[in-house]
Amino acid sequence: MSQPNKPIFERIAIIGIGLIGSSLARAVRERGLADHIAIATRSSQTLEKAEKLGLGDSYTTDAVKAVADADLVVLCVPLGTIGAVGKAISGSLKNGAIVSDVGSSKASVIKDLDGVLPDGVHLVPAHPVAGTEFSGPEAGYASLFNGHWCVLTPTAKTDTDAVKKVRALWEACGMKVEEMDADHHDQVLAITSHLPQLIAYTIVGTATDMEDDSKREVMKYSAGGFRDFTRIAASDPVMWRDVCLNNKDAILDILGRFGEDLNNLQRAIRNDEGDLLETMFSRTREIRSGIIEMGQDKPDIKPED
Amino acid sequence: MSQPNKPIFERIAIIGIGLIGSSLARAVRERGLADHIAIATRSSQTLEKAEKLGLGDSYTTDAVKAVADADLVVLCVPLGTIGAVGKAISGSLKNGAIVSDVGSSKASVIKDLDGVLPDGVHLVPAHPVAGTEFSGPEAGYASLFNGHWCVLTPTAKTDTDAVKKVRALWEACGMKVEEMDADHHDQVLAITSHLPQLIAYTIVGTATDMEDDSKREVMKYSAGGFRDFTRIAASDPVMWRDVCLNNKDAILDILGRFGEDLNNLQRAIRNDEGDLLETMFSRTREIRSGIIEMGQDKPDIKPED
Repeated sequence: MSQPNKPIFERIAIIGIGLIGSSLARAVRERGLADHIAIATRSSQTLEKAEKLGLGDSYTTDAVKAVADADLVVLCVPLGTIGAVGKAISGSLKNGAIVSDVGSSKASVIKDLDGVLPDGVHLVPAHPVAGTEFSGPEAGYASLFNGHWCVLTPTAKTDTDAVKKVRALWEACGMKVEEMDADHHDQVLAITSHLPQLIAYTIVGTATDMEDDSKREVMKYSAGGFRDFTRIAASDPVMWRDVCLNNKDAILDILGRFGEDLNNLQRAIRNDEGDLLETMFSRTREIRSGIIEMGQDKPDIKPED
Repeated sequence: MSQPNKPIFERIAIIGIGLIGSSLARAVRERGLADHIAIATRSSQTLEKAEKLGLGDSYTTDAVKAVADADLVVLCVPLGTIGAVGKAISGSLKNGAIVSDVGSSKASVIKDLDGVLPDGVHLVPAHPVAGTEFSGPEAGYASLFNGHWCVLTPTAKTDTDAVKKVRALWEACGMKVEEMDADHHDQVLAITSHLPQLIAYTIVGTATDMEDDSKREVMKYSAGGFRDFTRIAASDPVMWRDVCLNNKDAILDILGRFGEDLNNLQRAIRNDEGDLLETMFSRTREIRSGIIEMGQDKPDIKPED
């Protein structure tokens, strides 16, 4: 456990208490980053779990109540409900409050909340790039964010002091924080996160459509590579539905490029172009080396080392 | 280390000493499965490494010499060279010798070796479904095969005693052994192993084509999912080139199905079909549950459990 920090906020309201929300609550509590953690979630069943886990200081199914007097509100709800939640709470936010979020697309969050939040309330869109394939309040843990990136996408009118405070929060949770333009964030994440996820869903879906006998054999011999995709494809369907709907343009662009590359591969196989295939399979090593040089993955060493 | 077994073979010749060949050599040595391990590889540099690692009892760059007097010959070379190696050694195989392999496609191996091996020599095509993304004699380790499946694809004319002996070898190496028709093997592996690998190569290739600035950011934020694909895409390009060329029909069939499913996904995103997307992302859980029930992966528990 880390040394207790000086609290950054008096009252944090966490709206939505799934994997990310509950991990944030745990990290804030463990590191003493707020005097009071108010937790709100629509489902009374989920709220009960959160209370049983002792994730906060107060609990309510009414987001409006949770945000009253909060100096920071973090929306940890699916992207599709951000606009509605923003509208619901807007009248109860105190002057000077910061509203942030944890959504995987950022331009849509700005669009959904712009004009909804009252003057004197500061919007600081954020995306802590961390997660697992598990969902719900039990799935969270305080060290989830350690060593990962958090991207902030302030707009021209975002208050710089508010940005500093949100940055301080995520840094205290162990994250490396970067700022960038929302559209740029959406393009980068479309390839590093959204495309891999959609590919995993698709490949497992392709197998799901097979006849029962074949399907049993796919499961049986899944350790050959397929199994890793099934793990990724176990992620929360609602979250990923909303990512698709809210980062539509960037995702369609990257799916288009990927589809072209896949067609190229198919053609090379159909035409028995061995040299081309070998080149295609060799050039991908450049990016792998770059990732290792940048310290984003462990060097490639064999399992028993 | 396991208890020494009674040797199954007097002399095993391992032709090709990469990841699989060197792992087999180590397992045979460690478990006392043969009195003599003869190692052959074309490259004198690789042979030197194998000798330095003490993987066998005799070493040669000439496969013809290695197979003389061997009662089992295991071809651990890329699929593209199996036919040529088979032809080269055919005149030196002793009567009653067994020839096996470790290739990822099986119909092509039967086609390449059928009619090439002399009468009285028994072909037992095999595929130990195990591996890592590493290559070369240093990458191998004796426990690589533990708990994984090995598929044997004997033909109607394969000697049953020879099949029993090859089964005993892989079982002694820790594998679960199944027999099936070669074409069926090729179809199952096309989805469980070949498609995931080709998808990983393609997605990393798509990123490789981006401008340098974007590429750096893809590396930086790769932990969001993309990174896992770069690890898979670090696998041996020559091996995978040969898999594509030798399991062409099954791979093209499954790439076609996957491509259709990908088009469906694109259309659903383009048309904002949220319900359809959620259904697509939920139905993949069935296969995941099946894999866990069949003991092919650990249950989904959160990382800190």
